[in-house]
Amino acid sequence: MSGSIYGKLFQISTWGESHGKGVGVVIDGCPAGLPLSEEDIQVFLDRRKPGQSRFTTHRKESDSAEILSGVFEGKTTGTPVSVLIRNQDQRSRDYSNIMDCYRPGHADYTFDSKYGFRDYRGGGRSSGRETIARVAGGAVAAKILRSLGIEIQAYTKAIGPVLIPEEQYDYDEIFNNPFYMPNALRAKEAADYLTDCMEAKDSSGGIIECVITGMPAGIGETVFDKLDASLAKAILSIGAVKGFEIGDGFAAALSKGSLNNDAFTAKDGNICKLSNHAGGTLGGMSDGSPVVFRAAVKPTPSIAQEQKTVNKDGSPVSLVIQGRHDPVIVPRAVVVVESMAAITVVDLLFSNMCARMDFLERFYCNTFNL
Amino acid sequence: MSGSIYGKLFQISTWGESHGKGVGVVIDGCPAGLPLSEEDIQVFLDRRKPGQSRFTTHRKESDSAEILSGVFEGKTTGTPVSVLIRNQDQRSRDYSNIMDCYRPGHADYTFDSKYGFRDYRGGGRSSGRETIARVAGGAVAAKILRSLGIEIQAYTKAIGPVLIPEEQYDYDEIFNNPFYMPNALRAKEAADYLTDCMEAKDSSGGIIECVITGMPAGIGETVFDKLDASLAKAILSIGAVKGFEIGDGFAAALSKGSLNNDAFTAKDGNICKLSNHAGGTLGGMSDGSPVVFRAAVKPTPSIAQEQKTVNKDGSPVSLVIQGRHDPVIVPRAVVVVESMAAITVVDLLFSNMCARMDFLERFYCNTFNL
Amino acid sequence: MSGSIYGKLFQISTWGESHGKGVGVVIDGCPAGLPLSEEDIQVFLDRRKPGQSRFTTHRKESDSAEILSGVFEGKTTGTPVSVLIRNQDQRSRDYSNIMDCYRPGHADYTFDSKYGFRDYRGGGRSSGRETIARVAGGAVAAKILRSLGIEIQAYTKAIGPVLIPEEQYDYDEIFNNPFYMPNALRAKEAADYLTDCMEAKDSSGGIIECVITGMPAGIGETVFDKLDASLAKAILSIGAVKGFEIGDGFAAALSKGSLNNDAFTAKDGNICKLSNHAGGTLGGMSDGSPVVFRAAVKPTPSIAQEQKTVNKDGSPVSLVIQGRHDPVIVPRAVVVVESMAAITVVDLLFSNMCARMDFLERFYCNTFNL
Amino acid sequence: MSGSIYGKLFQISTWGESHGKGVGVVIDGCPAGLPLSEEDIQVFLDRRKPGQSRFTTHRKESDSAEILSGVFEGKTTGTPVSVLIRNQDQRSRDYSNIMDCYRPGHADYTFDSKYGFRDYRGGGRSSGRETIARVAGGAVAAKILRSLGIEIQAYTKAIGPVLIPEEQYDYDEIFNNPFYMPNALRAKEAADYLTDCMEAKDSSGGIIECVITGMPAGIGETVFDKLDASLAKAILSIGAVKGFEIGDGFAAALSKGSLNNDAFTAKDGNICKLSNHAGGTLGGMSDGSPVVFRAAVKPTPSIAQEQKTVNKDGSPVSLVIQGRHDPVIVPRAVVVVESMAAITVVDLLFSNMCARMDFLERFYCNTFNL
Repeated sequence: MSGSIYGKLFQISTWGESHGKGVGVVIDGCPAGLPLSEEDIQVFLDRRKPGQSRFTTHRKESDSAEILSGVFEGKTTGTPVSVLIRNQDQRSRDYSNIMDCYRPGHADYTFDSKYGFRDYRGGGRSSGRETIARVAGGAVAAKILRSLGIEIQAYTKAIGPVLIPEEQYDYDEIFNNPFYMPNALRAKEAADYLTDCMEAKDSSGGIIECVITGMPAGIGETVFDKLDASLAKAILSIGAVKGFEIGDGFAAALSKGSLNNDAFTAKDGNICKLSNHAGGTLGGMSDGSPVVFRAAVKPTPSIAQEQKTVNKDGSPVSLVIQGRHDPVIVPRAVVVVESMAAITVVDLLFSNMCARMDFLERFYCNTFNL
Repeated sequence: MSGSIYGKLFQISTWGESHGKGVGVVIDGCPAGLPLSEEDIQVFLDRRKPGQSRFTTHRKESDSAEILSGVFEGKTTGTPVSVLIRNQDQRSRDYSNIMDCYRPGHADYTFDSKYGFRDYRGGGRSSGRETIARVAGGAVAAKILRSLGIEIQAYTKAIGPVLIPEEQYDYDEIFNNPFYMPNALRAKEAADYLTDCMEAKDSSGGIIECVITGMPAGIGETVFDKLDASLAKAILSIGAVKGFEIGDGFAAALSKGSLNNDAFTAKDGNICKLSNHAGGTLGGMSDGSPVVFRAAVKPTPSIAQEQKTVNKDGSPVSLVIQGRHDPVIVPRAVVVVESMAAITVVDLLFSNMCARMDFLERFYCNTFNL
Repeated sequence: MSGSIYGKLFQISTWGESHGKGVGVVIDGCPAGLPLSEEDIQVFLDRRKPGQSRFTTHRKESDSAEILSGVFEGKTTGTPVSVLIRNQDQRSRDYSNIMDCYRPGHADYTFDSKYGFRDYRGGGRSSGRETIARVAGGAVAAKILRSLGIEIQAYTKAIGPVLIPEEQYDYDEIFNNPFYMPNALRAKEAADYLTDCMEAKDSSGGIIECVITGMPAGIGETVFDKLDASLAKAILSIGAVKGFEIGDGFAAALSKGSLNNDAFTAKDGNICKLSNHAGGTLGGMSDGSPVVFRAAVKPTPSIAQEQKTVNKDGSPVSLVIQGRHDPVIVPRAVVVVESMAAITVVDLLFSNMCARMDFLERFYCNTFNL
Repeated sequence: MSGSIYGKLFQISTWGESHGKGVGVVIDGCPAGLPLSEEDIQVFLDRRKPGQSRFTTHRKESDSAEILSGVFEGKTTGTPVSVLIRNQDQRSRDYSNIMDCYRPGHADYTFDSKYGFRDYRGGGRSSGRETIARVAGGAVAAKILRSLGIEIQAYTKAIGPVLIPEEQYDYDEIFNNPFYMPNALRAKEAADYLTDCMEAKDSSGGIIECVITGMPAGIGETVFDKLDASLAKAILSIGAVKGFEIGDGFAAALSKGSLNNDAFTAKDGNICKLSNHAGGTLGGMSDGSPVVFRAAVKPTPSIAQEQKTVNKDGSPVSLVIQGRHDPVIVPRAVVVVESMAAITVVDLLFSNMCARMDFLERFYCNTFNL
């Protein structure tokens, strides 16, 4: 187990390195009958593709998805959907400056510790290119969710100190700026801040927020496989994410019960909450309100400044990283967050189907005319 | 799947409700030959037992662990270890005021949504008593880790606004105050703050921090089952936890690469880091530094104030919760955090054993004289 | 992982040794709303209880099931159902003759090889008492299936050379003889045969057959988790089972395609098969015909004859086993086969619920009025 | 979950249809440092490749393996190994005669029942080509085992009535005939028998036997994940396999304890057995003797004779299958059996590594100098 398989019922198995032949995903457990084309996946991949703005790496990759199996006459067949994305712009450049040394903030040292050696070319499996496979899987999961009335939208809440308070959100702006920020003015400030970072050969962190709407209440398991716990793992498994919070999150630690509790009420006969400090979960299950969570993303570790580090043998070296790197990881990670959330929610939706005898009986009755 | 089984190789299966016959855990995958007594488990259980101070519920429970299987002549046999803790003080009081209504901040509504009905007595399975089983499992996991040189210590970093900065930590104080805070003065301030909360019929949130030392580098899987991601799920699966961060966590979002990167160096021939912004993981694997993470805990939802809510049928009701409740969840959750961390780390240690051919060959050679 | 957890969605976690405090099972994933009492489980346990006839061990065990959790007001709540069966007649006799020696046909040597030592009292975890937990789980699974119109019936097809050909089956006789044989005459012959075995201080093997009716077509996954493959594992996991076959099984190896293929036809508008050589599965999925499989059970290894074996240190010893042992395992294993089949089928039924988008959409629409 | 992922620690995820773009496998959990080339995999694939003799389909497929990831400088890196085999000879012929009708003995009807429709071209995912991915995975597993001193060899024991008794085995002959039979004379008889079958437009079943040598004692888990139970599932998951037996298997049902028990003895200080009726397992764990099991394979369902069946709508049709089909599945399945056995054994070897505290402590001590 190298831990490259995720999910219980809707399972993705991902593979691939930055400078190998490509990356890919096998989706096991996609229901039959979902209309699916390469275009559906491409739309998602294009959101994380490099080269979209001057704030991303200049590596040229079309990141074209090829569906190899599991789709027949435009629909999924219920069998595994294999998606292949060939690498194109693997520069056959000289890696001698990083093959022996441990870049700060990267997984070079831990890979060597775990496996004894590593594919050092472009970071190998620890490269951001690994997330392509997640996004391909997420595109499929999101399509399933949409057909059930569930929408997931992630966006950039903060880049370094440039943070957008909730009351300034304008969701229509998300796709109008290179950072996927829901506020045009803040996006401009972020651009200025990043330009300064780049000039200083430095990088910035940030915060991604994600909202899931249309979730019926009761999704998520009650003890270990809680909806929020499962989302936490999904999101922390994305490289560079260092924190996760749902609803008021860390602010709840400062709060009081009388303020933090969300009162229930009824509207048009439906039970709902008057506030959403909880972020849409109670006891680990969705409560019918929007599920709202945030991910803290660390600054890109690859910076153009000279850095002190050591070689494999422990001897000190001075390192200047020359590759092509994003000054901030956040914007391209937005769709990765959305993808991991979608995969996680689909899985919990599926496992919820057998939670009640009355539903089971009705399901089997309707389906098989028992 | 109700999600009450956790782990891949070291697996715990938990069961039990607040007012049922008891709670328990079955541990599948405990290695043979571990010296284990009921006392080992009791020491852990006593740390979360109610009635330790005036800041906890007055429910009287001895929470005595009985080992039912898997131990022979004082040692684990390799077969499942079943631990039973009988409930004692289930008050047969009248639950009519909560059986039909949805308490704010509790899982009543989501349980009903998921399952159609619920065991409302004392919160049923969503009660804090569910965590007893985790702690029993954690005691065993912690004992395994200790024999391998790995120690886990959790403590209270903040209760409401009373937060202890790192430079004021005095680990010797942890067991000297009812809050498990590593600073005597702050513990007093916390007591004052909580007394105020209680007088105002209110409750407080807080932050738990946990440190894992002695971890070899390379533990954790590289993509989905990262050490930090796995810990995040483990911790968020504890009721009332709303956030998780590792190392600098959310502060990293505000930082820059030049500040956030931890430089490598060598000491006595061993590679290590000069700082630990990362909190002990790189690329999801332990990096040899202490693993440091924090959990945000929301205020106890059960408060003595009158609250507005609705009944099952949506009709508005005024609710006064009369049970016995902690004004803050944090202190009793400290050992739960430690337990979940221990179980998670054992599991990843085990799965790491087959990561390399040279280790495998040597292991089989040594073991079986092949 | 000691491999004591079984299933993906309907999961049983079993524990307990022959001469420990008891045995038990935790069922995780039982749907909410199933009427369930201890009596439901007891009926199943009584079918494997010792002391039912002169052909079983004389160990006295009431094998009384206590439900510890997961049931409220007579119905399952969706949370784990924990069932405890205390051991009663653990004779505190002298085990010195087997604690150091390896009984032929038993797991003494392999337990020592795997774990370094073993709980030798009564075979510890490798005792037939381990199956009590399976039967308790099976009783619950069977009740779920019955409510969906699926029935499972196992019976003894052969004891030693006394085999009942299909054309002589009289299902009404199954519960009229101590062997659960569907033919009164053959049951008498079996009694005679076993009496001879017992007089010769020997034991007999036999064959159990199991029929599942009411299965809708399409249950079972298409590649690794085939219905027949899953049943094979379930049945072979029962101690003493040495073979599994479905439909014509090994006889199919001697057959030809023209004879072995089952022709399809239609009856009252429903597609069905004219014969059932396949035993109810095609491509690993149920085909709507009865699922019919058989298990080969080896003779009880504990015989009263003197046997040659060795001690831990390899020195030869002469062994006479004195315990209380069944001359044939088959009759008491019938309900174990039925139980493992029930658990396996429930699990595959549940995972089948998310196989199709049209079912999913209808399910979520109906359930949540999306 | 379509059940196309197999294993717990050494996991294979397979995909692909007969007439899609190709088939493939992703191996997650292959240890780092295993020398691996495409040639290693090709050797295995070539053993199941069509067109090796006149007794196989005439479909032309080179079945060339391309390793897409997880290997660097000739060695596995510990990350997923993705292997792609492109389909070549997908004849774009007319499928109108099978797209609507249900071929006897095939999975057409069950696929439609489960998923609502199917990729009917060449059987889609239920084609024998699905096993290519298993063999690619098996080649890697076998290479791991070989480096630990464990060898797996499967061969044809019977084709229809032509059965080779154990005393006539000549293992050197296995690769000298198109059937992988360990006896030259019987191979000739099998050829004659099959020629007759083909002339009669019919097909034959058969039996595959597999022997695993070099297994240390104690491999396999003690309850559900027994070695024999796990092998049974692995083997029954191969299409067309209808039965599994280990050691004396079904013959043990006819035997007596005094005959079936294998006496222990000691040779050169090592404990071993004087006979092997058990087939190398006791209590579900390897006992140090060779593991010997058999698989019953049904006759190829695709025969050239006219067959009666029905269409989707239940109307009767007369079917003549025109494709390219093997008159017997057995010879090409031999390497599939070997592969599934190898994958299963690797997985259980890995999970066995954390079975004992003394091994764990020594392992971590040696590895990390704790």
